[in-house]
Amino acid sequence: MSIPEITQKLLAAKQEKKLSFADLEKVLGRDEVWIATLFYRQASASEEEAKLLVEALGLDATYIKELTEYPVKGLGPVVPTDPLIYRFYEIMQVYGFPIKEVIQEKFGDGIMSAIDFTLDIEKEEDPKGDRVKIIMSGKFLPYKKW
Amino acid sequence: MSIPEITQKLLAAKQEKKLSFADLEKVLGRDEVWIATLFYRQASASEEEAKLLVEALGLDATYIKELTEYPVKGLGPVVPTDPLIYRFYEIMQVYGFPIKEVIQEKFGDGIMSAIDFTLDIEKEEDPKGDRVKIIMSGKFLPYKKW
Amino acid sequence: MSIPEITQKLLAAKQEKKLSFADLEKVLGRDEVWIATLFYRQASASEEEAKLLVEALGLDATYIKELTEYPVKGLGPVVPTDPLIYRFYEIMQVYGFPIKEVIQEKFGDGIMSAIDFTLDIEKEEDPKGDRVKIIMSGKFLPYKKW
Amino acid sequence: MSIPEITQKLLAAKQEKKLSFADLEKVLGRDEVWIATLFYRQASASEEEAKLLVEALGLDATYIKELTEYPVKGLGPVVPTDPLIYRFYEIMQVYGFPIKEVIQEKFGDGIMSAIDFTLDIEKEEDPKGDRVKIIMSGKFLPYKKW
Amino acid sequence: MSIPEITQKLLAAKQEKKLSFADLEKVLGRDEVWIATLFYRQASASEEEAKLLVEALGLDATYIKELTEYPVKGLGPVVPTDPLIYRFYEIMQVYGFPIKEVIQEKFGDGIMSAIDFTLDIEKEEDPKGDRVKIIMSGKFLPYKKW
Amino acid sequence: MSIPEITQKLLAAKQEKKLSFADLEKVLGRDEVWIATLFYRQASASEEEAKLLVEALGLDATYIKELTEYPVKGLGPVVPTDPLIYRFYEIMQVYGFPIKEVIQEKFGDGIMSAIDFTLDIEKEEDPKGDRVKIIMSGKFLPYKKW
Amino acid sequence: MSIPEITQKLLAAKQEKKLSFADLEKVLGRDEVWIATLFYRQASASEEEAKLLVEALGLDATYIKELTEYPVKGLGPVVPTDPLIYRFYEIMQVYGFPIKEVIQEKFGDGIMSAIDFTLDIEKEEDPKGDRVKIIMSGKFLPYKKW
Amino acid sequence: MSIPEITQKLLAAKQEKKLSFADLEKVLGRDEVWIATLFYRQASASEEEAKLLVEALGLDATYIKELTEYPVKGLGPVVPTDPLIYRFYEIMQVYGFPIKEVIQEKFGDGIMSAIDFTLDIEKEEDPKGDRVKIIMSGKFLPYKKW
Amino acid sequence: MSIPEITQKLLAAKQEKKLSFADLEKVLGRDEVWIATLFYRQASASEEEAKLLVEALGLDATYIKELTEYPVKGLGPVVPTDPLIYRFYEIMQVYGFPIKEVIQEKFGDGIMSAIDFTLDIEKEEDPKGDRVKIIMSGKFLPYKKW
Amino acid sequence: MSIPEITQKLLAAKQEKKLSFADLEKVLGRDEVWIATLFYRQASASEEEAKLLVEALGLDATYIKELTEYPVKGLGPVVPTDPLIYRFYEIMQVYGFPIKEVIQEKFGDGIMSAIDFTLDIEKEEDPKGDRVKIIMSGKFLPYKKW
Repeated sequence: MSIPEITQKLLAAKQEKKLSFADLEKVLGRDEVWIATLFYRQASASEEEAKLLVEALGLDATYIKELTEYPVKGLGPVVPTDPLIYRFYEIMQVYGFPIKEVIQEKFGDGIMSAIDFTLDIEKEEDPKGDRVKIIMSGKFLPYKKW
Repeated sequence: MSIPEITQKLLAAKQEKKLSFADLEKVLGRDEVWIATLFYRQASASEEEAKLLVEALGLDATYIKELTEYPVKGLGPVVPTDPLIYRFYEIMQVYGFPIKEVIQEKFGDGIMSAIDFTLDIEKEEDPKGDRVKIIMSGKFLPYKKW
Repeated sequence: MSIPEITQKLLAAKQEKKLSFADLEKVLGRDEVWIATLFYRQASASEEEAKLLVEALGLDATYIKELTEYPVKGLGPVVPTDPLIYRFYEIMQVYGFPIKEVIQEKFGDGIMSAIDFTLDIEKEEDPKGDRVKIIMSGKFLPYKKW
Repeated sequence: MSIPEITQKLLAAKQEKKLSFADLEKVLGRDEVWIATLFYRQASASEEEAKLLVEALGLDATYIKELTEYPVKGLGPVVPTDPLIYRFYEIMQVYGFPIKEVIQEKFGDGIMSAIDFTLDIEKEEDPKGDRVKIIMSGKFLPYKKW
Repeated sequence: MSIPEITQKLLAAKQEKKLSFADLEKVLGRDEVWIATLFYRQASASEEEAKLLVEALGLDATYIKELTEYPVKGLGPVVPTDPLIYRFYEIMQVYGFPIKEVIQEKFGDGIMSAIDFTLDIEKEEDPKGDRVKIIMSGKFLPYKKW
Repeated sequence: MSIPEITQKLLAAKQEKKLSFADLEKVLGRDEVWIATLFYRQASASEEEAKLLVEALGLDATYIKELTEYPVKGLGPVVPTDPLIYRFYEIMQVYGFPIKEVIQEKFGDGIMSAIDFTLDIEKEEDPKGDRVKIIMSGKFLPYKKW
Repeated sequence: MSIPEITQKLLAAKQEKKLSFADLEKVLGRDEVWIATLFYRQASASEEEAKLLVEALGLDATYIKELTEYPVKGLGPVVPTDPLIYRFYEIMQVYGFPIKEVIQEKFGDGIMSAIDFTLDIEKEEDPKGDRVKIIMSGKFLPYKKW
Repeated sequence: MSIPEITQKLLAAKQEKKLSFADLEKVLGRDEVWIATLFYRQASASEEEAKLLVEALGLDATYIKELTEYPVKGLGPVVPTDPLIYRFYEIMQVYGFPIKEVIQEKFGDGIMSAIDFTLDIEKEEDPKGDRVKIIMSGKFLPYKKW
Repeated sequence: MSIPEITQKLLAAKQEKKLSFADLEKVLGRDEVWIATLFYRQASASEEEAKLLVEALGLDATYIKELTEYPVKGLGPVVPTDPLIYRFYEIMQVYGFPIKEVIQEKFGDGIMSAIDFTLDIEKEEDPKGDRVKIIMSGKFLPYKKW
Repeated sequence: MSIPEITQKLLAAKQEKKLSFADLEKVLGRDEVWIATLFYRQASASEEEAKLLVEALGLDATYIKELTEYPVKGLGPVVPTDPLIYRFYEIMQVYGFPIKEVIQEKFGDGIMSAIDFTLDIEKEEDPKGDRVKIIMSGKFLPYKKW
């Protein structure tokens, strides 16, 4: 599964228009990370959202339909080679079991949803070097017994 | 690579003593997630921290040495099968490229460190279902040119 | 990850007592499939449930603690080799995309939960050969936008 | 193995005609899931079925031949990355052995056929969140001894 | 998944008793290949068959129970390294699609069952070098439409 | 490695001419399975055979050269996903060791050749469901000592 | 992920102009290895650097934009097959743990950054055969505790 | 392949004796990295070297034989999960092709030997954070033509 | 599949007795490489050969039976990590297709047998560095047509 | 990595000219196997060699440049599926450890170079079936200590 063609088109138009994802956040009323997710066709827009985006980027209306389709999700190789993305694989390898332990202690047997889920990225300025802050929020789903 | 024997011992002692990771947080002056990471031998303690932990858990001093050693890190199969841990793999598959895009827009070409890195877990009570909040903070490391 | 030792013990005791999972269903007030899931340590019991099970099987109380622990889940190789289990892999390979298409048409962009989830197995007698009926019920989880 | 070209054509025509799979069910006298399976070229139609489908979708007759061919089956990567499809992989990982145990208790040594097999999807409305109901029915095949 | 312990015991006893699989064929009234399959715990015996086998091999009755259990099936690595077994992998790689083509031409869309299935091995003497003859017979299973 | 282009051309021409592999058997004086193997470019024809085939299918002479070339062999993924082809993988997983045991008992340490090898497919009519009969014959090759 | 098209263009222009990476080092004021990294789109140039490079190679300005983009990084298969590149995989397999041991002894628990990182290649003339000298320098990053 | 038992023994003795690899460098007259490589049984010692090491560590003479044997080399999983070791995998993924390009420009078609090879690790103090310096030196081996 | 226990025993006895494989060649009347293959249980001995070997090594007679058994063959990981063994993997990767081309030109469509096969290793003294000479001889097996 | 386009062109021209690799051996003064290696772009020619080859094959001079470039090496899947090439994989699996044992006994700790390496193929006529003889000669490289 490779990066969709539409992603290149959307990113090029955004660059042309000198718009940041934060600028698009104001246009769509959606978070910048969600919008980037839409760019990579890992999320689907409503007709309304697709129109706003296409207009903001100065693209023609033919993109609207594709943006509203429900995509096949998941991008990249089994173990990512890009260092930025790999770090999240590493976090899962190193902190996965500890996270499981703490979540289960706080919530019981279940998981954090990756569907009823939001993800924010903030820049924390720091004299020793700026920091990337990532805030994930997922609904806790307890295992159903039956 | 399988879960170390010491992990079972520490978890059993903690359960026996009816201590939560939050309780241990007060004893060690370290975050509960970091302590769980130490339990799974994905982090190394100082002599001081190891002593405090071993005492709190009522274990004998022989565990101190192992807790201060620098472990080989990374646990579990290439793609995790445990649903709770898998969700982080899924987040990386679905949100990896969008996260990369937004971080690069905010910071330039580089990565979020997974070493100069902290991770907190909070419980957000919510009438529609409690939510798991995960806050990651990693130093931004720009690619060095030379 | 291999089949836990406790599974062998539970299965042997069940055979000894000549109990079917359907018999245990009456004892625990839980579905036979869920009980088999507990046997394989892919689910965790309440203290109450563990006690009932251990008594019914004539085992000593030391098993109760293990049965209430939250297990690491997922069993077997990446692609299962056992023919019975492989057929479910095959169903996912052959019918996965069609199922996705139909669920999305009926529900929108989202998934069927495998956590808020039940699974029943029934025997349908049929002169041309009895049939296995499997009924899965999972909560639909729409993708959250933010 | 990637999604066949004809699948895109069929889905686009269906969207154009504003037909649901349930509508096509009435046209073909086949279940909506089977029709979606045919769309993804994981099943083969009779000449008659192919004609009815092509007409209903307003496509020209050249598609009929392809729809009646016996396809190479199986779609997607070894471990699926799409969350909706992955959940079925997860069900096989978590519930595979318990299902095997229960089927064998009810039927003896053998498997559920994935060929003499049907799969239905229903929407169960539920105030706590609608549920996806999946009903699989496969002939039990006992191992032959010889 | 590795070769079960019981297999070593059965093979050693058979060697001790200087029995061939053909000899056991007469004892059990089952084909030698099926009996070898039972030795490797890839098939399950009836109580009667298990008794006959255990007696013929001069083993004590404790093996009977294990031989009647329904085993987890599939042995060896994803791609076999043993040359004799690999040749069957190679046959599948080289002749797999041609076999599919010919079966489908003769039978329609469907498969040869590997469950309602028998396999015989014969020695064909030949002055240019003896030949191994393998005869597989599996029920044709047409894809069900619904 | 994907299915060669020439395979599509040959299969289409065969369908157009309404020829079965059995019909081609009479034309070429070769078994239908071998001819299907040639179609998939897993075997190479003599100049004579290639000419007869190309004429029978009404194709122009440019295909002759390609059909006589010695191909790179092996088709499809490491573990096949097509159910018909997978069953042969399953047979190797389940019956591989038993087959090894029986062949070695009859022949000694060695293998069945997959090169000095023939494979026939027959349809056995059976009131309980027709059966696919596959007859493999390979020269036994004993391990050379030196 | 395959070698980008732009890489071929840059290498061809460099060959045409009979420029070595050492020559380009003087033009850009960057190390030859970093420039080769830029050629393979594993690093991103500043606008200024991209202009200097494009001019030196006699290419038109359209390449500047692509050279300044932040690329997806990582090239080649999981285990490299090219012998020159494989040797680095072998060094990691054979010397990985010893390197870990020595770094940890000198620095404590942490890693060598591959981001705040430089790599130089020198030719050491030697009568017994010239030697390749590779000097890596990466910032030590101690694990943060929190 | 897992970490050999002798490695644990050697490391424990070294810790007990409070010896650094640099201390052992003086004892053996070999580089500290090579000695660490010997600890992990990725190199073989001469009888003389083994004796010196065993004495320095206060171990009994039975270890000498094992240390002089030529080991099977290579440790750890296909893609390493330990972050320190992974960084070398990442360097190979990101810088592998650029390194190949520069070495070939300087030396011609060939490789850097990983056998006629040395590796040194130095600590560079730096106010902005100490740096790990790794110096590899391998004989250039040109491809032989014949 | 790991190195068999008997291999360690045989190698230790051989070292104890200060016998080379060349010495054993004289005892058994078999090539040293074949004997090493027997040590690793990748070949099976006749009763006579097993006795001679066991006597020469001063081992007790209980090893004879195991040495005459027909072993499961193939050792080590999918891609070998040991540098000496890996070089043969590399030869196959780099020279595999050229070898195929030349063999087919000389012999036609077929393979070199790895069963009716011998392998010799010689030391060629050379002032520029001694050379390892490996001579493989395998019967050519032409593809059978049928 | 797939077979390069130039390979097809070179092989077609060679067939057209009815030249064998042995004929080209006389033209280039290089071994036929090396020339086949060059055809597959696993070796690089000198300008002189490239010219001679291109002329002999009647191709135009534009191929010269490509033939002199230093290629990325390694062809085909991780485990080869072509039976002729696979046999070399099998030899490595079955004889790899024995070869290692014998080479180390004769030469000490080190490897056979696959770079300072030649490979010849000869046809040995034999009334019981012709034999393929492969002679590899690689420089022994002892592990350097430092």
